[in-house]
Amino acid sequence: MSTETRERILEEGARLVREHGFAATGLDAILKASKVPKGSFYYYFKSKEAFGLELVTMLGEQIANAFQSFLCCEYEEKSTTRLRMFFDYFKDEFTSEDLPLGCPIGNLAQELAAVNGEFRKRLKPVFSVMYDSVACCLSRARDNGETELNSSPEETATFIVNSWQGALIALKVTDSSEPLMLFEKLVFEELLQSKEKL
Amino acid sequence: MSTETRERILEEGARLVREHGFAATGLDAILKASKVPKGSFYYYFKSKEAFGLELVTMLGEQIANAFQSFLCCEYEEKSTTRLRMFFDYFKDEFTSEDLPLGCPIGNLAQELAAVNGEFRKRLKPVFSVMYDSVACCLSRARDNGETELNSSPEETATFIVNSWQGALIALKVTDSSEPLMLFEKLVFEELLQSKEKL
Repeated sequence: MSTETRERILEEGARLVREHGFAATGLDAILKASKVPKGSFYYYFKSKEAFGLELVTMLGEQIANAFQSFLCCEYEEKSTTRLRMFFDYFKDEFTSEDLPLGCPIGNLAQELAAVNGEFRKRLKPVFSVMYDSVACCLSRARDNGETELNSSPEETATFIVNSWQGALIALKVTDSSEPLMLFEKLVFEELLQSKEKL
Repeated sequence: MSTETRERILEEGARLVREHGFAATGLDAILKASKVPKGSFYYYFKSKEAFGLELVTMLGEQIANAFQSFLCCEYEEKSTTRLRMFFDYFKDEFTSEDLPLGCPIGNLAQELAAVNGEFRKRLKPVFSVMYDSVACCLSRARDNGETELNSSPEETATFIVNSWQGALIALKVTDSSEPLMLFEKLVFEELLQSKEKL
């Protein structure tokens, strides 16, 4: 038994769950996609729920890596520019897919956070990482005089990340990049009153 | 066969789907909750998907009724106050439930709009009604000098409704009213720069 097998199950499972949702993704489909027998699955995960919780942890690590390495590192650009580059990058990612499947963690939160306390507990720190990374970027932007914030960086960041999640629902409904472009326009030009553009 | 039976299937189905999602709600559970035999279900709906599409139509009518009767009618209050009362009302509704199940139409959009073109087609006009109703309210607010809008009422309304949907995901993750209160704060005090409070 190898960590490689465990990771393959999680990666293939993540792909299926992102498209079909957690409940609608059968164990058989996960086994088939990751090419492992049932016994092997149960060697790594004691149940489908345990697999789902590990999926949240894996996605959480990927998200933390993306948010923190992009927003909380040293960079040359202005912080507001950096933040806009970040959302621009994911706008391009999410709109270039065959299907507008949106944010894997937002999808799981929508499906499971209300009805399953274990998932809610596991999802909460993932959202916190997103909020904190954007807050750290906004805090720099404010300190450097790039933007005036009327609310705290933390509050503004939380609103921005939540609004992004909502824009990703609208991406699915419209099947166009418009909601994400509108998100950028309103957030950067109005809320943050940041003058520069990409 | 009566329209009452059809409505009971839709109402009970809506309750189950809001909690468990569309894919995870089995036909048996719908039959049991609405107390109809399978043959009766298939008399009204030719498939579970057909039932789901009718569910979107029913929810769309309820949403159109709520948004339009609250935001597009004659009222005494200022338009920005009226809009805040509206979101305040639903904030109280959504946070007073046993489980933070969020918006029935936002949930369906998240689950189905990307992967099912029929659902996407049916969901799109429901979102348009939400956008248009808020836009009509914002347009009055601007014309009455209650707020200055830098973007069009339509763009601002679309951003607000999408952000609301995102705040409802965060409601599930935090199991608290905080994301909805933050939504109101940032939208009314910053984006619309509306001075009055409820």
